[in-house]
Amino acid sequence: MAATVKYDEVTAGQEIPAVEYPVHRVNLVMYAGASGDFNPIHWNERFAKSVGLPDVIAHGMFTMAQGGRFVTDWAGDPAAVVDYGVRFSSMVVVPDDDNGAVITVSGVIEEKLEDKRVVVVLTARSGDSRVLSKARAVVQLS
Amino acid sequence: MAATVKYDEVTAGQEIPAVEYPVHRVNLVMYAGASGDFNPIHWNERFAKSVGLPDVIAHGMFTMAQGGRFVTDWAGDPAAVVDYGVRFSSMVVVPDDDNGAVITVSGVIEEKLEDKRVVVVLTARSGDSRVLSKARAVVQLS
Repeated sequence: MAATVKYDEVTAGQEIPAVEYPVHRVNLVMYAGASGDFNPIHWNERFAKSVGLPDVIAHGMFTMAQGGRFVTDWAGDPAAVVDYGVRFSSMVVVPDDDNGAVITVSGVIEEKLEDKRVVVVLTARSGDSRVLSKARAVVQLS
Repeated sequence: MAATVKYDEVTAGQEIPAVEYPVHRVNLVMYAGASGDFNPIHWNERFAKSVGLPDVIAHGMFTMAQGGRFVTDWAGDPAAVVDYGVRFSSMVVVPDDDNGAVITVSGVIEEKLEDKRVVVVLTARSGDSRVLSKARAVVQLS
């Protein structure tokens, strides 16, 4: 499978439109089961607050995964990400209500590399906080 | 693998000593992931109470599984259960504290069948309630 985005059609500095990813408590319960990380800070409000957190928070890797999904959805190929790294700069707090939380991810093509690859710098926010910083993916276009 | 309990050494009417199985909220989160049953009554206290339950309750199949585990642990063979059926007579309520809940399972060998099989009738209780009734397993001994 190849990316649907073509290298020749993108330019450095180009923005990738933001996508909102809703997060509900059930997503964290699912992620706990899938990842094997059952730390109660990700599903137990009483416990989360008892250790000083504002509420239940998302797994860092769950948040990072939304950034990865943003890039692969944009590129049109789940295998397009060649390199991906982030710094976890703030928590995604997930209230127990119908709204839950929202992770908003956007990106900018920072640089065009050789071999039809580009560097995408991501921004991920939730509420008033930037939840990923120094988030950078090298993406194989076609 | 064959059962470690020998058919010739058991008698009808013989009791199988009770075993206590602790249940904590995390076990239900794990069971949700493993079973794919993410109904919030099994992990969200607010939701459980909003639909009239006393608190988070265990999945029925989780409770049933403890009865199965009791029988296979006793028989010494995970494949010893030939036939198994229960009626769910009460809920296992799982408080969010260090104690959680306890499911206490005990059994009686009700009948010796042919082919080295026995009928085990199980009793499963949690708190003041009988949580499984008409619980009956046919078990292959050796």
